[in-house]
Amino acid sequence: MLGKLNHVAIAVKDISSATKTYKNIFGAQVSEPLDQPMHGVTVVFVTLPNTKIELISPLGENSPIVNFFNKNHNGGIHHICYEVKDLELAITNLIKNNYKLIGDKIPKIGAHGKPVIFLHPSNFDGTLIELQQE
Amino acid sequence: MLGKLNHVAIAVKDISSATKTYKNIFGAQVSEPLDQPMHGVTVVFVTLPNTKIELISPLGENSPIVNFFNKNHNGGIHHICYEVKDLELAITNLIKNNYKLIGDKIPKIGAHGKPVIFLHPSNFDGTLIELQQE
Repeated sequence: MLGKLNHVAIAVKDISSATKTYKNIFGAQVSEPLDQPMHGVTVVFVTLPNTKIELISPLGENSPIVNFFNKNHNGGIHHICYEVKDLELAITNLIKNNYKLIGDKIPKIGAHGKPVIFLHPSNFDGTLIELQQE
Repeated sequence: MLGKLNHVAIAVKDISSATKTYKNIFGAQVSEPLDQPMHGVTVVFVTLPNTKIELISPLGENSPIVNFFNKNHNGGIHHICYEVKDLELAITNLIKNNYKLIGDKIPKIGAHGKPVIFLHPSNFDGTLIELQQE
């Protein structure tokens, strides 16, 4: 069931500075910053040979990552995203086994235009996991 | 310079329970738990199609991840590991640009038998980064 690691999202305070580090110090391929008002974040994609890193910084007052910064003042790894072959089946299986989802259990269209759902960190050793339809 | 994402390490309290979740709920391919006394952790490898997840739990009283649990009682994503083509060159470049390394700036042999070094989270938005020779 578990497919590729789609991305690791890293919450950063200063996306311009973090992007420069990945570009100039690591020599990584980085995108231009992209505002995603629907998701309350600005994103820079760092392309690695086998997956990608998403540098995210808060956008707007109601950004969903503001709470994360209240607990992690310097930023840090925010979540990991796994691809699954059948998201609906995955959700059914998780609910049947009493795993908590975030929100109303209905997949939303994520930042990549595909259905996604977030799993509650309390069931996954404090790790926020996003599942994305392949 | 920046190569593949070699792994994401997730610190878990109960490695048996976390392994069961990845195996039974996600249907992922998981290894047997492996004690690594030199690194103060027990590790389970979760194989994904494009990279791997390492579930790590403390081994011994001087485990280097005990501090992490003091700050993150439920566990969480501990570090990410990038591969680099030339670790010595990467270290020289980081030092030249005033980035802090953890320890004495000399690569150690990591859990995969290859030279590794850890970069200080203060330079990377709170993210602990391991660089591993390809």
